[in-house]
Amino acid sequence: MPLVTIQPEGVRVQASYGSNLLTVLKEAGVNIESVCGGRGVCKKCVVEVFSSGLTEPTSMEAEVRSMSKSFRLACQARIIGDVVIKVPQSSRQTRGKILEWGRVKDFGFYPATRSVNVKIYAPSLTDQRSDAERLLQALNAKSIDGLLLKKLPGKLRELKWDLEAILHDGEILDVRPRRDQDFYGVAVDVGTTTVVAYLISLKTGRIVSVKSDYNGQIAYGDDVISRITYAVKGGKNLEELQGKVVATINKLIQDAADEAKCSPFDVYELSFAGNTVMTSLLYGAEVSAIASAPYVPPFRSSLRFKAREIGLRVNDSAIGYTFPLISGYVGGDVVADILVSGMHEQDEKSLLIDLGTNGEVVLKAGDLMLASSTAAGPAVEGAGLSNGMRGMNGAIESVSINVENFDVYYKTIGDADPRGICGSGVVDAIAWMLIAGVLDQKGRIADINTPRIVNIDGDKAFVLAVNREGRRICITQTDIRRFQLAKAAIFTACLLLLRIGGVSLSEISKVYIAGAFGNYIDPRSAMIVGMIPELPLSKIVQIGNGSGQGAAMSLLSRKVKEEAEILARKVRAIDLNTINGFQSEFIDATQFPHKKTDMFPRVMKAIAMKAPLLD
Amino acid sequence: MPLVTIQPEGVRVQASYGSNLLTVLKEAGVNIESVCGGRGVCKKCVVEVFSSGLTEPTSMEAEVRSMSKSFRLACQARIIGDVVIKVPQSSRQTRGKILEWGRVKDFGFYPATRSVNVKIYAPSLTDQRSDAERLLQALNAKSIDGLLLKKLPGKLRELKWDLEAILHDGEILDVRPRRDQDFYGVAVDVGTTTVVAYLISLKTGRIVSVKSDYNGQIAYGDDVISRITYAVKGGKNLEELQGKVVATINKLIQDAADEAKCSPFDVYELSFAGNTVMTSLLYGAEVSAIASAPYVPPFRSSLRFKAREIGLRVNDSAIGYTFPLISGYVGGDVVADILVSGMHEQDEKSLLIDLGTNGEVVLKAGDLMLASSTAAGPAVEGAGLSNGMRGMNGAIESVSINVENFDVYYKTIGDADPRGICGSGVVDAIAWMLIAGVLDQKGRIADINTPRIVNIDGDKAFVLAVNREGRRICITQTDIRRFQLAKAAIFTACLLLLRIGGVSLSEISKVYIAGAFGNYIDPRSAMIVGMIPELPLSKIVQIGNGSGQGAAMSLLSRKVKEEAEILARKVRAIDLNTINGFQSEFIDATQFPHKKTDMFPRVMKAIAMKAPLLD
Repeated sequence: MPLVTIQPEGVRVQASYGSNLLTVLKEAGVNIESVCGGRGVCKKCVVEVFSSGLTEPTSMEAEVRSMSKSFRLACQARIIGDVVIKVPQSSRQTRGKILEWGRVKDFGFYPATRSVNVKIYAPSLTDQRSDAERLLQALNAKSIDGLLLKKLPGKLRELKWDLEAILHDGEILDVRPRRDQDFYGVAVDVGTTTVVAYLISLKTGRIVSVKSDYNGQIAYGDDVISRITYAVKGGKNLEELQGKVVATINKLIQDAADEAKCSPFDVYELSFAGNTVMTSLLYGAEVSAIASAPYVPPFRSSLRFKAREIGLRVNDSAIGYTFPLISGYVGGDVVADILVSGMHEQDEKSLLIDLGTNGEVVLKAGDLMLASSTAAGPAVEGAGLSNGMRGMNGAIESVSINVENFDVYYKTIGDADPRGICGSGVVDAIAWMLIAGVLDQKGRIADINTPRIVNIDGDKAFVLAVNREGRRICITQTDIRRFQLAKAAIFTACLLLLRIGGVSLSEISKVYIAGAFGNYIDPRSAMIVGMIPELPLSKIVQIGNGSGQGAAMSLLSRKVKEEAEILARKVRAIDLNTINGFQSEFIDATQFPHKKTDMFPRVMKAIAMKAPLLD
Repeated sequence: MPLVTIQPEGVRVQASYGSNLLTVLKEAGVNIESVCGGRGVCKKCVVEVFSSGLTEPTSMEAEVRSMSKSFRLACQARIIGDVVIKVPQSSRQTRGKILEWGRVKDFGFYPATRSVNVKIYAPSLTDQRSDAERLLQALNAKSIDGLLLKKLPGKLRELKWDLEAILHDGEILDVRPRRDQDFYGVAVDVGTTTVVAYLISLKTGRIVSVKSDYNGQIAYGDDVISRITYAVKGGKNLEELQGKVVATINKLIQDAADEAKCSPFDVYELSFAGNTVMTSLLYGAEVSAIASAPYVPPFRSSLRFKAREIGLRVNDSAIGYTFPLISGYVGGDVVADILVSGMHEQDEKSLLIDLGTNGEVVLKAGDLMLASSTAAGPAVEGAGLSNGMRGMNGAIESVSINVENFDVYYKTIGDADPRGICGSGVVDAIAWMLIAGVLDQKGRIADINTPRIVNIDGDKAFVLAVNREGRRICITQTDIRRFQLAKAAIFTACLLLLRIGGVSLSEISKVYIAGAFGNYIDPRSAMIVGMIPELPLSKIVQIGNGSGQGAAMSLLSRKVKEEAEILARKVRAIDLNTINGFQSEFIDATQFPHKKTDMFPRVMKAIAMKAPLLD
């Protein structure tokens, strides 16, 4: 049987003669992308081939091979001999297990919340120290949580002075039986649109469950401004908004605990990373001054508080921690992104783009670190569009279009019947609509004679799919307009930060893509629509949900918290609205990919060729 | 007009010829005792005379003059020329304003809670620091209370950045208009029977109002053991007990604030001194382990917490502090007593006796400090007796009896119609019943033919007064029995501590009398009944409510808190129940004044002479 060597892993597998390369790769555990079901249409399963041993290229591979003769589409190749191939990062589904992210290792496993087994001397008439002293001295700890202190006499005697103590820094949070039972932290990415909670074992450092849902505040408006507007109306509005996000988090923690077969009561620490408004509302702080110049937040340093104080349903003594904020409009999520990317420690010039309802951009150039925020709106997260939905089962997450006949190939999460389209699907769909000529540079849906272009209540729309119930999943002209504003906001932020930093795009060595769906988006599609600057794919690093990962890292190492504090004070926040020319740059950026097409030569070529962008 | 010189004050007043000396002294502002209304019967208004200028002594003065020729009863003397007299401490009503107590001065006015006026730079586009940073940096403070932090943006802007901040140590508790408005602390003596609250201006250090009431827990039992028994029954009992004492304190604070025309919201710090069980229940901590050997309390160090956490209705950000405890049965009230007495700083050997439901005794001899607690019961506070009542309007607080005809002279608080008898009145009444021969050494009410001895439901009783409604205020035989147990407990504690310390009574230079009614009790009466050891009156120092005063001092100087912590660890607690011979000593001490009468030679002489004890 032929031997297939897969790089860069170095994995070797035996394959039966004539078997399909894509199938073999998938069976070998390689997370290779494929949307069109192996028809050669989506051009996602590109591999690099270093030997013979494959059948001849098919006609579907012409575009790919025009980039490099060593490129093949795995779905089109059959194995007829030993072969060495490389699966480039751009062809991989990177929605990986977050804990495998290497940065955690750099900090070491040094959690602030830890457990200690201890056997305490029982009291006697010659040792009448109080229960509190006894425990503090045995653990060399500084303090005891107030609620635990109240129950300490009963607990210590029930445990017969032989116990496992849970400590956070010098504070004793709990005492419980020595049973090698696990205990947990929860890292939360508090997004304007989406909240993601990671349940993490603080004993092993492993993520045991991840849950996400829309932020319950979404009923009060799509963006941070509408939330602030509601909060400042007075009455109990602020408490209401706080209650909504806390309820969302409580639900996620309960779901995650159910999945991991543990109890929210076993959660002893929570770390929250979110933008400034989300962080303030989570804590219940007034946000009135953030909205207007000089955009002053209530606080910027990290907060440390008892989770019970804000109504979180976890262990009674659990500690809450919020990431430090950079400014009124650049928050702790960006600090977390930077930490996860490691860009601040590199000499090279780099950009970081957090794709979310609040799009954030960071430029690092020498000692300079500039950050900016832009109100992209929830369109990039699949919310606020006609058939938008969160990245959950049945969401179209990946799309390609046959440029000849406008057939749409798509992949849904869980391979379920399509119910809607999520962020990465939207970007893919619009990119392919451009490639296929369904959309023009100004974002108008073309008048093409195809049953896929329909009219819905006077709104032109392109049909991506029809589900089993007969419901059409479309991208409408209105959706396109919303998306144009969103992507223009993000691109303009990149452009202006580069200009302020005096850095040209060609000097940029790395672009880190972050965000709740930053791992799922196809960066080629993001370039085609002009959401991010055109750069070689090799310079793009998708770090996934940096906010959630940063929060997770802070649970696993107290050094992360120290570094976050330093970083938050080091980054300079730039208010884009005060920058000359912002408005006209923004308008230019609403075009696909941009009014100044010379910034996107390869994208323009791909559109002209009706071919996807390849590296 | 004759000139009257009053020592040791050195005050000189002019008096009209023939005027009554007692009247002149009262008009001059001397708090001289007088119960019988100037009839010469109660022998309380003894003065020392150093010159002529008074009328000749009357027959009522014979007993007094048998002690010293220079003694006179002020009520019997009229002024006929210039005269120099001294009013001894034993003749003074010492229920003074507590803040005049000199010990506060030793520590200096250095409260942990203080106010600072500050004008903060308003934010601008070139200074986008957060509100929290702005305030912290302007005040050089470390942290901001969480509830204040939430409201900070609105408050700072309303105050236009010009404000008075209230700080506790490094924490900012409040910001408010610069109006030279006062702010307050509350010192609380948390007694088993009685709770006393002192509202204190932390701006000036003055006590502005004092309120007291029975501890709402009294419905659950008279002593600490019955409270523990109720608490450990489970369910919500512990919370219920906590709620009762917190409700009592809230009521006292509201009343005190009403009187001082301020708001409980202006209270920013509270200091609590109480025995170990009262302190634990106040905080809501389990008390199960205190009741049985080895008598271990949940905690001994002082606690610092947010007053809101235990339901106190004061400023949202106010700090609560509890005095450190010595052991399971010797609490923070004793630490406060010692601090107020200053005994720990003196070279001389001394005793401290805290008269209360829990009677506590401290012996200081060289480096040794021993403390013990004894369950005296509420009788010494006037509770639990047939006509017992708290020291409030209408309570008989002072008594004397005409040994010839058993007429009773009494004084009520507020000079109101008598409603009952309070602690100091009980001690006086029983002492005089002994002097007058109404009671024998074993505590039996004698069979004397006087309408004052009556039978109430088969219980013999001595009628002290009949009020306007015709109700009789009596001391019953049952009351006497209860009182005997209480006074025997206290005396035995003194005796055994002296024995353990190897100190004889004659070596004792000072006996400090403390307790909620420690200022009001007549130490001569306390000796006659054998509650405290017989000693020259000059060795008795009444420090009043040491627990409340100590709490007050801790509000006024943070050094007091530091010293309390050191002291609490220095004092050795002695469990009297483990001492050989305790039981037989206790039984001997139930007699009046004691079975071993040789310990009370002067008392025995006074009883034999049917005369009060004079120094």
